[in-house]
Amino acid sequence: MEMRRILNSLNVIALNHVSKPAGDCMPDNVRVGFAKIGNIASAPLIEFLLDERADREDLEVRIISSGAKMSPEHAVEVASKLLELKPAFTVTTSPNASLPGPAKLRELIANGGVPLIVVSDAPTRKIVKDLEDAGFGYIIVLADSMLGARREFLDPVEMSLFNTDLIKVLAVTGVLNILQTELDKVIDSIKKGEKPVLPKIVVDKDVAVAAAGFENPYAKAKAIAAYEIARRVADLTTEGCFILKEWEKYTQVVAAAHEMMLTAAKLAEEAREMEKAGDTVFRSPHHRDGTTLKKHKLIEKPQRLI
Amino acid sequence: MEMRRILNSLNVIALNHVSKPAGDCMPDNVRVGFAKIGNIASAPLIEFLLDERADREDLEVRIISSGAKMSPEHAVEVASKLLELKPAFTVTTSPNASLPGPAKLRELIANGGVPLIVVSDAPTRKIVKDLEDAGFGYIIVLADSMLGARREFLDPVEMSLFNTDLIKVLAVTGVLNILQTELDKVIDSIKKGEKPVLPKIVVDKDVAVAAAGFENPYAKAKAIAAYEIARRVADLTTEGCFILKEWEKYTQVVAAAHEMMLTAAKLAEEAREMEKAGDTVFRSPHHRDGTTLKKHKLIEKPQRLI
Amino acid sequence: MEMRRILNSLNVIALNHVSKPAGDCMPDNVRVGFAKIGNIASAPLIEFLLDERADREDLEVRIISSGAKMSPEHAVEVASKLLELKPAFTVTTSPNASLPGPAKLRELIANGGVPLIVVSDAPTRKIVKDLEDAGFGYIIVLADSMLGARREFLDPVEMSLFNTDLIKVLAVTGVLNILQTELDKVIDSIKKGEKPVLPKIVVDKDVAVAAAGFENPYAKAKAIAAYEIARRVADLTTEGCFILKEWEKYTQVVAAAHEMMLTAAKLAEEAREMEKAGDTVFRSPHHRDGTTLKKHKLIEKPQRLI
Amino acid sequence: MEMRRILNSLNVIALNHVSKPAGDCMPDNVRVGFAKIGNIASAPLIEFLLDERADREDLEVRIISSGAKMSPEHAVEVASKLLELKPAFTVTTSPNASLPGPAKLRELIANGGVPLIVVSDAPTRKIVKDLEDAGFGYIIVLADSMLGARREFLDPVEMSLFNTDLIKVLAVTGVLNILQTELDKVIDSIKKGEKPVLPKIVVDKDVAVAAAGFENPYAKAKAIAAYEIARRVADLTTEGCFILKEWEKYTQVVAAAHEMMLTAAKLAEEAREMEKAGDTVFRSPHHRDGTTLKKHKLIEKPQRLI
Amino acid sequence: MEMRRILNSLNVIALNHVSKPAGDCMPDNVRVGFAKIGNIASAPLIEFLLDERADREDLEVRIISSGAKMSPEHAVEVASKLLELKPAFTVTTSPNASLPGPAKLRELIANGGVPLIVVSDAPTRKIVKDLEDAGFGYIIVLADSMLGARREFLDPVEMSLFNTDLIKVLAVTGVLNILQTELDKVIDSIKKGEKPVLPKIVVDKDVAVAAAGFENPYAKAKAIAAYEIARRVADLTTEGCFILKEWEKYTQVVAAAHEMMLTAAKLAEEAREMEKAGDTVFRSPHHRDGTTLKKHKLIEKPQRLI
Amino acid sequence: MEMRRILNSLNVIALNHVSKPAGDCMPDNVRVGFAKIGNIASAPLIEFLLDERADREDLEVRIISSGAKMSPEHAVEVASKLLELKPAFTVTTSPNASLPGPAKLRELIANGGVPLIVVSDAPTRKIVKDLEDAGFGYIIVLADSMLGARREFLDPVEMSLFNTDLIKVLAVTGVLNILQTELDKVIDSIKKGEKPVLPKIVVDKDVAVAAAGFENPYAKAKAIAAYEIARRVADLTTEGCFILKEWEKYTQVVAAAHEMMLTAAKLAEEAREMEKAGDTVFRSPHHRDGTTLKKHKLIEKPQRLI
Repeated sequence: MEMRRILNSLNVIALNHVSKPAGDCMPDNVRVGFAKIGNIASAPLIEFLLDERADREDLEVRIISSGAKMSPEHAVEVASKLLELKPAFTVTTSPNASLPGPAKLRELIANGGVPLIVVSDAPTRKIVKDLEDAGFGYIIVLADSMLGARREFLDPVEMSLFNTDLIKVLAVTGVLNILQTELDKVIDSIKKGEKPVLPKIVVDKDVAVAAAGFENPYAKAKAIAAYEIARRVADLTTEGCFILKEWEKYTQVVAAAHEMMLTAAKLAEEAREMEKAGDTVFRSPHHRDGTTLKKHKLIEKPQRLI
Repeated sequence: MEMRRILNSLNVIALNHVSKPAGDCMPDNVRVGFAKIGNIASAPLIEFLLDERADREDLEVRIISSGAKMSPEHAVEVASKLLELKPAFTVTTSPNASLPGPAKLRELIANGGVPLIVVSDAPTRKIVKDLEDAGFGYIIVLADSMLGARREFLDPVEMSLFNTDLIKVLAVTGVLNILQTELDKVIDSIKKGEKPVLPKIVVDKDVAVAAAGFENPYAKAKAIAAYEIARRVADLTTEGCFILKEWEKYTQVVAAAHEMMLTAAKLAEEAREMEKAGDTVFRSPHHRDGTTLKKHKLIEKPQRLI
Repeated sequence: MEMRRILNSLNVIALNHVSKPAGDCMPDNVRVGFAKIGNIASAPLIEFLLDERADREDLEVRIISSGAKMSPEHAVEVASKLLELKPAFTVTTSPNASLPGPAKLRELIANGGVPLIVVSDAPTRKIVKDLEDAGFGYIIVLADSMLGARREFLDPVEMSLFNTDLIKVLAVTGVLNILQTELDKVIDSIKKGEKPVLPKIVVDKDVAVAAAGFENPYAKAKAIAAYEIARRVADLTTEGCFILKEWEKYTQVVAAAHEMMLTAAKLAEEAREMEKAGDTVFRSPHHRDGTTLKKHKLIEKPQRLI
Repeated sequence: MEMRRILNSLNVIALNHVSKPAGDCMPDNVRVGFAKIGNIASAPLIEFLLDERADREDLEVRIISSGAKMSPEHAVEVASKLLELKPAFTVTTSPNASLPGPAKLRELIANGGVPLIVVSDAPTRKIVKDLEDAGFGYIIVLADSMLGARREFLDPVEMSLFNTDLIKVLAVTGVLNILQTELDKVIDSIKKGEKPVLPKIVVDKDVAVAAAGFENPYAKAKAIAAYEIARRVADLTTEGCFILKEWEKYTQVVAAAHEMMLTAAKLAEEAREMEKAGDTVFRSPHHRDGTTLKKHKLIEKPQRLI
Repeated sequence: MEMRRILNSLNVIALNHVSKPAGDCMPDNVRVGFAKIGNIASAPLIEFLLDERADREDLEVRIISSGAKMSPEHAVEVASKLLELKPAFTVTTSPNASLPGPAKLRELIANGGVPLIVVSDAPTRKIVKDLEDAGFGYIIVLADSMLGARREFLDPVEMSLFNTDLIKVLAVTGVLNILQTELDKVIDSIKKGEKPVLPKIVVDKDVAVAAAGFENPYAKAKAIAAYEIARRVADLTTEGCFILKEWEKYTQVVAAAHEMMLTAAKLAEEAREMEKAGDTVFRSPHHRDGTTLKKHKLIEKPQRLI
Repeated sequence: MEMRRILNSLNVIALNHVSKPAGDCMPDNVRVGFAKIGNIASAPLIEFLLDERADREDLEVRIISSGAKMSPEHAVEVASKLLELKPAFTVTTSPNASLPGPAKLRELIANGGVPLIVVSDAPTRKIVKDLEDAGFGYIIVLADSMLGARREFLDPVEMSLFNTDLIKVLAVTGVLNILQTELDKVIDSIKKGEKPVLPKIVVDKDVAVAAAGFENPYAKAKAIAAYEIARRVADLTTEGCFILKEWEKYTQVVAAAHEMMLTAAKLAEEAREMEKAGDTVFRSPHHRDGTTLKKHKLIEKPQRLI
């Protein structure tokens, strides 16, 4: 009881300490706008990747979302609200960014003169050239597979479990490191007053694990395997959601797809446990000033690279 | 290649099919506004719990968030934007809703005349009476423990892994079923033109598992155990974040806290696997019209209860 | 000691008991010839699938193999020896049956007037039409992926482990049931003096699990997932063996491929354990007279279907 | 599609490249003949242990087998065919080499003047002196236990699973290393024109793990344990197959025996995973010229010992 | 705090409630004396098997032990103290009851005129006839293997871990059920004023699992396998403790023995989890009056059999 | 057979060798008396922690116990018998040492003039000051949680399983190291003729793992987590045993408590396996002369510290 009271006051102080200068400094902060329409697993935690302990003093994020829906009408509302918040640059997240909703979203934000990075999944690969021609950045995560969206199978709990499994794969295999690093680069450019170079990355297994900082090559092998399994889940969910018509069949197939993802998550977990066994887990926490630190041993201080 | 092309067109059609009537019907839809400041594990997927397959025709959701930051200044901006979107009712998510930021958020939304439900974690329990007096609903999730927010330990990947493990616990143990059911009740009241009765629920282990629909009592026992372990993680993270001052000590303790959560997640997984072994997994998907269906065997059609 | 002596005499008696009538009846037996060049995981145990307890009285099998090598020269020697053994029909096993060695093997055996069934892996799919035109039967197992044949990675132990993992997948997911059933059908035709209809089957995930006799749909889902993962291993081994040139890269990729297969095997094992949990494991042992029996509960007698 | 085509041509080239000189050099190659009657787990992959990537230029193998049957009549046919293939030396594989079939097999091959190595299981230990007196080599694998050959339990799938589990044990615990090394020694002598000294080895737990190259002593301990468990499986299968008469009882006991083997395989897997965790997995791939290389770290080149 | 205080008073009341009548009734209670010299895994919890919730009103137990030491001198002191406590009958526990210490212990207690049951391990089997001739009862647990008592390996923690693993095997496989049932039978006879028939049981795998109440035959198979593995641990510990002389060798072998026991414990755990999956775990709690109840479903009341 | 005979004679010799000087030296030995009333998991193996291989020449232990019962009447009988055995000092073990039985036990032993150390569980913490004032030593193990003592759930097997799981947690997390070290210190003082300083220790997670000798910080984190989970089991068992009245509810809750303990045990096992993976398992065996040795690598000789 007593301890709790102390904690809570500490808590308030801590947060006030953050928010006071944050309030004063707001003009100096980089403000990142996230426009989320529909869901992919790269999206739900993306803004927290930039400020994982809520103590970063050089950054503000704002998120506007229309939830699971992603029609052009939804895009219009999301885009207009986001532009009102005057972000320095914008990140859009959606499945299949070639669909009309995401396209409309990009169009409106681009019209607002705000730099834009598309974070999306494998079907977006087919419009890479369009994105480049339009000057957009992109991070396309091939392992961010669609879930088994069939009523006989997918309820809110199953949907959540699929997302936790997939986010675990993205976390361990290096995808979240890429999102962190690439968005930080853009933020850094803006802080320096430079024109940011937007990322143009298709995240396949090789790109992913290169960012994950593995020291044990078998852990890395397991991570690559987890990535590939996660990526191939989409074959089954696509078949189950768009090809198969008999409900007994598609229910069986989308259930198999989720078993694949659960297995991929366990394999990712194995990879991380293997790094723990060697005390070599790579960590790259943010400093309060927004720079990225690095460490490998648990009981060691994170280091600035220079 | 060829198949992909067909799929994508199917995809567009499917989504247009959804979005067309959605556009037309917007006035009739219930619009739920989510204001998210700071993060708890109940929050990142909460809006998708209401429309897990993006096909619900009676619902619109809008989310405004300031990410990890949760000062009163952030609350002001989030609240004002959300009110502009004219939600029928609002759900706020934040850690420790007794802090100034969440309090300011509630104040502003209440001033806007919009019904409000607080979704938060254990420290919020101490203001339950205040919330009731002010007419707010609340769903307080005791297992939604704080993470180990220490720079020597917590980087974006570790933060994400903690969230996936905790969301898995919330999903399997029934917490997400409660969020789904309670928000659906409010939506349903509004659809019927009734004044909604807002939920006033402290989710402890018993409340949680009662909602999870277990048929195997050992699976239920594992779920209760997982819930309790997840709840107790906060003891270690509180100690590690607010009491211990030596970095070697707090790093060790917050690392232990995350091991507890990983273990809780595995135990939750065991519970679900046990239900799979009996083919008794409870599922409650939404119908397109917003009603909730139920089923227990994988290869069976979900049923309306009446 | 004493017991051992009794056992050994029993053993001799038992085997003599078998071999005596077997000797007498040899003219009446169906003699199946297996020609194996190169290795696939469907091959090493294939002849035992027909006579798993060495007590079948209607069957003789003979196997000729050139081991891992599969050039046309090897095919010539294998084919000529096999023809000398006068099989009633022949089964050839090899990877990629479109290569010159397997083609030569088929040509020679066909010239010998012996019906022939090709058992091979995914690359063989491209010559299905040729096989049909030539009157060959075929069973093409898509999950029978190539291993990671790089000297920096693959030694005899690693090769063997890959095979055990893959055979486990084939066993649990129904592939071996298909091999058993289809070869038995041909044997049965020959026993009846009918001209056999040779199988023409591409074994994909659906064909496989349909034959595996699962009763629990989650076990079936796990089996489908295991099959798909095993099938996709070939993507990585193909990349590692034929595309990548830098040894550090291909070693990492083929190691990842074997991790995928190990994971697929574990998932297959999970599927079988789930059936054990319900005491519903499907078993189809042969009767001594060559007919196939069936059962699902462990402590029950296998039944003739008619 | 395109890639596949390239791969296949590469494939053909690669194999032609191998087979061309192989054709030319055949006279210089050592030709090893394998005569397999009945099955033990040391047998199905034994020829591939000598040439795991099908690229060895100094070796030819030929295999003749009568499948699961092993009467003297079968031995006669197998031996005569094998002698026609003119092997430089012969390896016979069978269970219990003291039975009449294997004895006849040895007699005929010896009469053909070909050196012979017996690979067999524990019951063969009782004729070790006879084998030595007759000048035969032998490798007797004590862990190569008989399976649970009861119709109520053993179908083709269960037979295959037992073999995969047992081969996994043999692979991890060093048995396959011994087979590889000892047969290579004989090949090497023949290549040098020396009279080969045939191996005379009873492979118990100590002999096995000494060959497996473990660096972590706990991994080695797990391997020893796995070996012993595998070896003791024969106690239960012997009881279940030869002693017990009531079908409910022997079915239960042979099922227990296979659970023991599955457990031994998992323990072997644990041993290997532990070596992976230290990046110390021992590998001894063949060079194309037939010499054996060695390595312990995944990302390092295998080395010739001298 | 408050709750704790209430609990503690409840606790006191509860225990007083027990102890009061216990005090009054002591003359009517059956008093069982346990003499423990040296350790076997059947011993540390044996007295609690008779009164697992400390609420049994018909029973008193007293235990005298000399710890790990078991010389005749120790036996003398233990026996004399135990006889002073006037037990209605005695249970002795020790390894190898053929050694001088246990023999002396039996001699002295028999001289005291108290019925005696020997609980011991496999080496005791060789004096079964002597025990019968002397009128002693016995329960010889073949799986109660000796640990790896070598200083380079066995410290207090390792000793404890071995015991937990082995007790787990004994618990799941039915051994503890036998101890419970057989001692209860003797108690019951004494309560009825009958001369007790002492148990004469060698607990092998079949005797054990018959008592364990399994419903799933695969769980039973796993339990049999666990029992056999535990039993065979003694082969390695005997070799490691008495045969091998080089410390590197015996350390490795006794480490392997403990890995076998850990594996047996996990397999036992699997067996129990499988019964949980079917909600068929057998439980036989004591009633307060000393009778034994039975149940299989978790949420059902235990039943008296008649 | 033959070997067994040799072994047994060896065994006798070995033990005679021990017991002979032990007999002679008895006056010089330190005699530790253990009084056990009721059960906690720290108790069943406590005496063996001091002499894990039964070869210590400076120590005698005697144990008197009343089993599960712990009323003052039981205490009287246990104390009087123990005093007759003239221990140099005494260790009492019981749950909740504030209850009348344990209090009576202390009173009587203190009256006998024998130094006394209380080993007990968390509820004992409230009388720490009383214990200190009375000059008693104490080791209070917070993780030594009460089991789920409800007749619908707890039978002898379940009781034993809970104890094995909990002892495993105590063993791996360092609790048993503390018991060993602290009792050894007292023995050592007495051997030197000094007045012993009795331990006064509340074993929380930090105290425990500091004694466990972990080298891998993730293993240590897992151990801390296991300790905390084990400690929190008491919350559920207290609720299930003393608060809840409806049998369906308390059965469910105590079943959940045991699932927590099983999970804690598995996590402890993971911690130890992680140390095995690094070959860094800490071992502190006793020398025959009673000093403690230490080692970390499996294949190394234990060292005296000075």
